[in-house]
Amino acid sequence: MSSVFLNDLFWTIAERGRALLDLEPAGRSDAQEPAALAEALLASTGEASMIALALQLNNRFAALDPAGRRTFFRALVDRFGPDRARLAQAIEHYQARGDDAAALALHAAAEPRRQELIRRLNLAPGGTAALVQMRAELLAQLEQEPALAGLDQDFRHLFSSWFNRGFLVMRRIDWQTTAAVLAKIIRHEAVHAIDDWDDLRRRIEPPDRRCYAFFHPALVDEPLIFLQVALTQGLPSAIGPILAEERMPIAPHSADTAVFYSISNCQKGLRGVSFGSFLIKQVIDELRRDLPELKTFATLSPLPGLRRWLAEVQAAGELPFDADPAVLAKLEGKDWPRHEATSAALKEQLLPLAAHYLLEAKTPNGQPRDPVARFHLGNGARLERLNWLADRSPRGLAEGCGLMVNYLYAIKDIERNHEAYAKDGKIAAASPVLKLQRAAR
Amino acid sequence: MSSVFLNDLFWTIAERGRALLDLEPAGRSDAQEPAALAEALLASTGEASMIALALQLNNRFAALDPAGRRTFFRALVDRFGPDRARLAQAIEHYQARGDDAAALALHAAAEPRRQELIRRLNLAPGGTAALVQMRAELLAQLEQEPALAGLDQDFRHLFSSWFNRGFLVMRRIDWQTTAAVLAKIIRHEAVHAIDDWDDLRRRIEPPDRRCYAFFHPALVDEPLIFLQVALTQGLPSAIGPILAEERMPIAPHSADTAVFYSISNCQKGLRGVSFGSFLIKQVIDELRRDLPELKTFATLSPLPGLRRWLAEVQAAGELPFDADPAVLAKLEGKDWPRHEATSAALKEQLLPLAAHYLLEAKTPNGQPRDPVARFHLGNGARLERLNWLADRSPRGLAEGCGLMVNYLYAIKDIERNHEAYAKDGKIAAASPVLKLQRAAR
Amino acid sequence: MSSVFLNDLFWTIAERGRALLDLEPAGRSDAQEPAALAEALLASTGEASMIALALQLNNRFAALDPAGRRTFFRALVDRFGPDRARLAQAIEHYQARGDDAAALALHAAAEPRRQELIRRLNLAPGGTAALVQMRAELLAQLEQEPALAGLDQDFRHLFSSWFNRGFLVMRRIDWQTTAAVLAKIIRHEAVHAIDDWDDLRRRIEPPDRRCYAFFHPALVDEPLIFLQVALTQGLPSAIGPILAEERMPIAPHSADTAVFYSISNCQKGLRGVSFGSFLIKQVIDELRRDLPELKTFATLSPLPGLRRWLAEVQAAGELPFDADPAVLAKLEGKDWPRHEATSAALKEQLLPLAAHYLLEAKTPNGQPRDPVARFHLGNGARLERLNWLADRSPRGLAEGCGLMVNYLYAIKDIERNHEAYAKDGKIAAASPVLKLQRAAR
Amino acid sequence: MSSVFLNDLFWTIAERGRALLDLEPAGRSDAQEPAALAEALLASTGEASMIALALQLNNRFAALDPAGRRTFFRALVDRFGPDRARLAQAIEHYQARGDDAAALALHAAAEPRRQELIRRLNLAPGGTAALVQMRAELLAQLEQEPALAGLDQDFRHLFSSWFNRGFLVMRRIDWQTTAAVLAKIIRHEAVHAIDDWDDLRRRIEPPDRRCYAFFHPALVDEPLIFLQVALTQGLPSAIGPILAEERMPIAPHSADTAVFYSISNCQKGLRGVSFGSFLIKQVIDELRRDLPELKTFATLSPLPGLRRWLAEVQAAGELPFDADPAVLAKLEGKDWPRHEATSAALKEQLLPLAAHYLLEAKTPNGQPRDPVARFHLGNGARLERLNWLADRSPRGLAEGCGLMVNYLYAIKDIERNHEAYAKDGKIAAASPVLKLQRAAR
Repeated sequence: MSSVFLNDLFWTIAERGRALLDLEPAGRSDAQEPAALAEALLASTGEASMIALALQLNNRFAALDPAGRRTFFRALVDRFGPDRARLAQAIEHYQARGDDAAALALHAAAEPRRQELIRRLNLAPGGTAALVQMRAELLAQLEQEPALAGLDQDFRHLFSSWFNRGFLVMRRIDWQTTAAVLAKIIRHEAVHAIDDWDDLRRRIEPPDRRCYAFFHPALVDEPLIFLQVALTQGLPSAIGPILAEERMPIAPHSADTAVFYSISNCQKGLRGVSFGSFLIKQVIDELRRDLPELKTFATLSPLPGLRRWLAEVQAAGELPFDADPAVLAKLEGKDWPRHEATSAALKEQLLPLAAHYLLEAKTPNGQPRDPVARFHLGNGARLERLNWLADRSPRGLAEGCGLMVNYLYAIKDIERNHEAYAKDGKIAAASPVLKLQRAAR
Repeated sequence: MSSVFLNDLFWTIAERGRALLDLEPAGRSDAQEPAALAEALLASTGEASMIALALQLNNRFAALDPAGRRTFFRALVDRFGPDRARLAQAIEHYQARGDDAAALALHAAAEPRRQELIRRLNLAPGGTAALVQMRAELLAQLEQEPALAGLDQDFRHLFSSWFNRGFLVMRRIDWQTTAAVLAKIIRHEAVHAIDDWDDLRRRIEPPDRRCYAFFHPALVDEPLIFLQVALTQGLPSAIGPILAEERMPIAPHSADTAVFYSISNCQKGLRGVSFGSFLIKQVIDELRRDLPELKTFATLSPLPGLRRWLAEVQAAGELPFDADPAVLAKLEGKDWPRHEATSAALKEQLLPLAAHYLLEAKTPNGQPRDPVARFHLGNGARLERLNWLADRSPRGLAEGCGLMVNYLYAIKDIERNHEAYAKDGKIAAASPVLKLQRAAR
Repeated sequence: MSSVFLNDLFWTIAERGRALLDLEPAGRSDAQEPAALAEALLASTGEASMIALALQLNNRFAALDPAGRRTFFRALVDRFGPDRARLAQAIEHYQARGDDAAALALHAAAEPRRQELIRRLNLAPGGTAALVQMRAELLAQLEQEPALAGLDQDFRHLFSSWFNRGFLVMRRIDWQTTAAVLAKIIRHEAVHAIDDWDDLRRRIEPPDRRCYAFFHPALVDEPLIFLQVALTQGLPSAIGPILAEERMPIAPHSADTAVFYSISNCQKGLRGVSFGSFLIKQVIDELRRDLPELKTFATLSPLPGLRRWLAEVQAAGELPFDADPAVLAKLEGKDWPRHEATSAALKEQLLPLAAHYLLEAKTPNGQPRDPVARFHLGNGARLERLNWLADRSPRGLAEGCGLMVNYLYAIKDIERNHEAYAKDGKIAAASPVLKLQRAAR
Repeated sequence: MSSVFLNDLFWTIAERGRALLDLEPAGRSDAQEPAALAEALLASTGEASMIALALQLNNRFAALDPAGRRTFFRALVDRFGPDRARLAQAIEHYQARGDDAAALALHAAAEPRRQELIRRLNLAPGGTAALVQMRAELLAQLEQEPALAGLDQDFRHLFSSWFNRGFLVMRRIDWQTTAAVLAKIIRHEAVHAIDDWDDLRRRIEPPDRRCYAFFHPALVDEPLIFLQVALTQGLPSAIGPILAEERMPIAPHSADTAVFYSISNCQKGLRGVSFGSFLIKQVIDELRRDLPELKTFATLSPLPGLRRWLAEVQAAGELPFDADPAVLAKLEGKDWPRHEATSAALKEQLLPLAAHYLLEAKTPNGQPRDPVARFHLGNGARLERLNWLADRSPRGLAEGCGLMVNYLYAIKDIERNHEAYAKDGKIAAASPVLKLQRAAR
């Protein structure tokens, strides 16, 4: 590809932030194996040829089928690891000299060659987006192909540096946002699906609704993560009224509570590079400045793993305390939320069970089993309240027995909660939640 | 510092891009050694405390005097290198296992701990700017303290990743630019000093002038590098008419040539992280799109090292060919440019000498001795023309004997020139320049 | 005041960074007749009280039901006309003095007092929007209440001044436009209805589609009028392919034709204040600059009045030339476009009839009877081509017998065409269209 | 056409993305008298030709010398007044019919034809700017040529409508503002001259300084009026400390007072179209929202007419109360502010005199004689405090004897003060000021 074409392209993309499609004269890049292109890219010395090769390789990859991609990933693992000879020499040199310079040389020699390859791929126009896409593909294949894990570590290491919190920009999402961005909000909402543009509008336009997202300068118009907020009077105990179609908005300045009712990641390829905690905290700051009347910052969150955990402990005969399987069996029915007696019986059983689940059920490495709990407790939030029949949607009933949790972000406690949790695994919880669990025991 | 204050601050800065000043209650951070803060930062687990400590350390550093900074740099070199015990273990493990995972562990173990420290300092609001400033200070001390070189390598490694070309944004600088940015343009112009705002205006407002700069999202309002362009009819042979106060601008669409007459870096702390080549090429693309009438893209550049080289070869008795020292001696006078005969005699001697200097004079490692030549030839430009009495300013006479060069960026040849230069050290030059040199020989 | 209007107002003001300073003491505006408020507003001397009263009156009006509004309009006509006594005096004075100053005083005295009232209402935050809304209401009532015509003239006079072409800003509408604006584009499209956001996206996002709108600074996010453009190779003869869901976009630079296939006004309250001609011409300029490859600028337009005209002349027994009523009767069927023979027979009849309709059918005051023809011919376009079965939509068949017209905007002829049309009523038409008509005759 | 004007025009158009389509055939405009062009413009029917003629006439006017311009202005007065025949007919018709429609027709007939001409000139690109410029020229000639007053009234009438408060946009001016705008702030500061860019920076960049301006959408980058504000602790009694080069800024949130120390109009051509009152009030709103800690909004203003008034009343032997001419004579000296005794003696005399001047000295039509007092009292401010030796600049001493005034904008009193002033000429003043005057009497 001539440098002219390349540079024009560069400009176009930088300016318009659009995707690359069918960039190359057909048949040309096909002639070369992606892995051979990768070698050429690593061997290249000039910036212009680097950019050209990087673009070519990104496009070549995008045109591959899944099998071709897997072959390429394997080649990266097999042939683009560290240079063994150089590494052996560097070890020898370090052991002879023992100084920091030798250690640094050793550090360099031990670096897998594919890290430099990934850095160079990032030089191409649209390179960052292409690499995030490439890792999404890699993650999809990783389950069948655990040998690719090393490559994933390289991606994650570099992405952590590139998506450094200092490079992220928070923007408000509202009805003044461009359609290009809003279309992605609709697509990526992961907690309470957005049905269509009218549903979206109800969530971002009324004066008592807020939505914020992080963006990265190299991913134009691509939200990385977004948080939906409802401004309310008092802490809400159910999601229904928040999402209701017919609803009278309240004046923002009359609200005392900001409820984070949904947080969604948009980029599969950035898994493990965390921004959620930063986003929540920055949103809290923003809201406090705008609306000094707000006193409470809390979530209204699902318990996505409750039902499955319940099934497992039941199956294993490990139901805590004297929970009644006969009552729990009624969860199988579809209409129990409408039967008052059944519902009341279930409530009596499930509230303590849910408290136990959140406080005591752990993953093998000792963390809370519920992923949402893990996230918010890790951020320094407090387990504040359990809400009965708070989410009557099919998914809410199927996964969380209709229960929802409020996690409280109490500004003055966040850091202390976080430290206690990080160091000692201690979960901050309000006394009614603790009582629920204790009473049951 | 409370997380509240911290976060508020975060917001303020993210939003306004301003500098931090006197953030902390006096007397508090003084209590702790910077190096102890650094240890605490590396030991920290929570994001909030990391940010708080990073901010504290950045501010603590900013408040140190040069001696205090040197002490801190030394501590980073001495106490924040790789963890030797862990490294020894990793070597052992790698030698036992020999697989890629072990190599990656070795890679990680050999990394100086200060790299992670620098990454964490980057989490603070304004962190990137503080680190660029810190490295500028380091570079200033490096000459007296070569032992700091390892630390500098860490900075450079991380900056190369963070200031990746894909994260840079090119913006036009003109009379519509904010004063905050323009004040920095005035300050950093390195080739032909900008006297004041009126001088600046003459360079960026007329329709036949352009100026472009690269910016990075984490350094708000801080140009990294900028390029000044004059649109002309024909290739100019002197800088005077370009900078003249009284000048009739031409219509942009009547120009056939874009002359790059000044390129300046703004961030000392980013030395060695190169963007100049990218900037020139992106400006060429931009100009071609806007003004398809442009046929020639070239520089009008100084020869900053000519006079010193001349002095050296004369002193060493190594004047090439039969150059006449008696004539050259007249360069000592101040008024020779006004004496026609002297000037003519000098011209006859100096043009071949300058051609020789540009084509043959090399640094110890074989690159062109002239730094400007090195830059443009490395970019794939061609040595196009030598211009006699092209810069009559005191500096132009003192450093380059009044000579200037046009380097030509011929789009179709850039890549080939670059390759020939990078691989074989071959300099692309127009035949008149080659003739000048050959004739003399 | 409905909460909707209130919220809109709230937002408008919040957006501009204004705070209303206790402008409306509770309970006060309800107590007062709108007409009394209007008198108070005209009597007011201070800016602050003017703004407060203007806002009060605008809100008071918005809260009225249609009958209340009509009462208010009547009061404006009856009680806010010119001051008769002052006018009589001014006439006397003018007749005595006869100079320009006396004429100017007469001019002022003859101005209906409601013009100043409308000017003052415009001082309130959101005033312009409220007045445009007020006139929309007035136009709706005008048919039943012709006595309100004088008031409408006042509105129109002032709006012509405020919506002066020099104050309009053209903006491109694309997928980067805010949802707030796009929602209005969907709502106001008047020619080929936009079904939903996906349909909208197909019209504004592909590289071979353009959309432009005029905005006024006092009506934030309110497009006044917008024009949809398709870039094509050759002049299209049917609307179907342009609006097709499955369609392969072409590269913009490969297009030679820009087709204006829809132009819609958004503000009923601005009826009679024309921007369409300016918009088309500015779009032509913009497109020529961006895409110099474009050679042809033309519309693909409906004939909304053809079928009705046909019915009328048939009913009146005035079918031109020997058109065959038996054939025309087949238009009543629904499926005729699918029957080849019927369709062919109709085509033979209808093409000449349509040519006749466009060229000869006039309104009582001598203008072309077809409103779309009137608009484009008035702009200086030429009647270029009739297209058979170009719009098979129910509306296209019902109103225009499936026919569409291309009006050609030939830059070099626009002014001449316009002059000929404006002065002599002469319609510029391509010879095939003229032939169609002549042949028939 | 001067190249300056041409370039401005060029830029204006380029900025808005417009291209002029062969609007002015070379050589044509020179051939025609401006007045003949004006006739052609009024006779024109098509929009395209209107725009072309309007542009031609604007350019033609810009190229005229002052004498040529005066000739054109005279022609507008003499030949573009109302159509007398039509007016006579309209009077007759009105007297016959007596209805509102006839009155409206009379209104239209009495309108000078040049109003429509001015409206049409506004259609040209850059038309509004050209017309504002034209009126500035007219105002300059008006003194020698009072017969042009009628034309000026037409301009003023139309400008009042076009520069309606609802169309103005307030923007903050700070170091983030473009150089294009800031250069105009420097040029137009009328109260305390801005020496250079450094002086400007001191006034707009520190956190305890604010500056706001009104802009109109048709005058790109042209501030109409701007207000400079200092945030202080307590009401300042001298201008020196506010403008001092060496000054420690205070934190904005620690300020309790916002001081308006300078307000300047930028457009001579908009004289008599007032925005100052609106600007001050909108700035108060903005500041209250941003900085709720602010309790006091006041000016620190000069008394530009004090010294001249003193001279007049002395000359006329009308010095109020027993003021001592011998003491006042010391004002002639230059150094009196440094002599304690003289200064004290002057203070005793001048404070009561200044109070008297502000409260009692009137123009022939009964308004306060001091123009600054007239402006702020008319806005509803209160005469709060007289400050001795508050402005020691040569101009301050020469015009105002070194005195300055604080006018207080007390939000809850503004409207009442204004009404009392507007209706009864009653000046709101703090009791110390009243006492000063009474004591003296």
